[in-house]
Amino acid sequence: MTWKDPVKWEAMKNGKDCPFCLDIRLEENPYSFKVAELSQSIVRLPRNQYWRGWVIVALKRHATELFELTADELSGYWQEVALVAKAVQRVFHPVKINYAIYGNLCPHLHCHLFPQQIGNDPHAPIKQNAEEVFLTEAEYRQIIKELQAVMNGSFDSIK
Amino acid sequence: MTWKDPVKWEAMKNGKDCPFCLDIRLEENPYSFKVAELSQSIVRLPRNQYWRGWVIVALKRHATELFELTADELSGYWQEVALVAKAVQRVFHPVKINYAIYGNLCPHLHCHLFPQQIGNDPHAPIKQNAEEVFLTEAEYRQIIKELQAVMNGSFDSIK
Repeated sequence: MTWKDPVKWEAMKNGKDCPFCLDIRLEENPYSFKVAELSQSIVRLPRNQYWRGWVIVALKRHATELFELTADELSGYWQEVALVAKAVQRVFHPVKINYAIYGNLCPHLHCHLFPQQIGNDPHAPIKQNAEEVFLTEAEYRQIIKELQAVMNGSFDSIK
Repeated sequence: MTWKDPVKWEAMKNGKDCPFCLDIRLEENPYSFKVAELSQSIVRLPRNQYWRGWVIVALKRHATELFELTADELSGYWQEVALVAKAVQRVFHPVKINYAIYGNLCPHLHCHLFPQQIGNDPHAPIKQNAEEVFLTEAEYRQIIKELQAVMNGSFDSIK
């Protein structure tokens, strides 16, 4: 679904039939694994790791644009995105992290974190779904464990 | 400058020879116009308006990643990005706003706001510099005036 169907798009912006609302709290859904539930957000690891280290921080409640959030929600959400970014930094050692809120296919507020590695082209647009790269169950579990450990302050003890 | 020169990149991440630090406070620089100075950020309108409505919200002080900010800075910065997004919504009437922090060419924290219009392809990556489209001085001034008016609550009186 996109804005090419304007009536459905406006309804989805207001939360009607929003696929994120249905499945972002699940431990696993067809697209991703839950990494953590925080106060304002759910952190998810996409199954497709073609862009290695791609992580999503989705607002728990339905909203479309940043200005729809209260000051407290906005503040809390970005503290959480920053915490997840710190975890991505510790686990994947990027030279830069890219942060993006698009919502062009599902207008439920979520921020993509894309770690940029030194071998990447800094001018290239990010196409995280240009190919599909799936990991083993054990590899997903290891990444999730490491991200969780940074977020709860126990990373040094597991490395 | 990019991470392809790792020594200079690390220095620039720490604020050395950062081009944004030198020119983001200027009324005009070779790339953009100042729209507003807020508490944590400077709002700028790029001269290249190939992506119509493209606006940048740059952190005033030098920082690279979100987790380098204090809780108060992070909160204040995102209240300001949300305010600018509201202005972009009122002035350009997009079907969705995209928000992106890259910093792959200059690692000084800044968020791009890209209004998406109904004629756009929701699957296409954003290439805001793929072409160059410059406006007249009067057109830039009108956009700046309208953005400022939403931000200070006087938009209805100028329309």
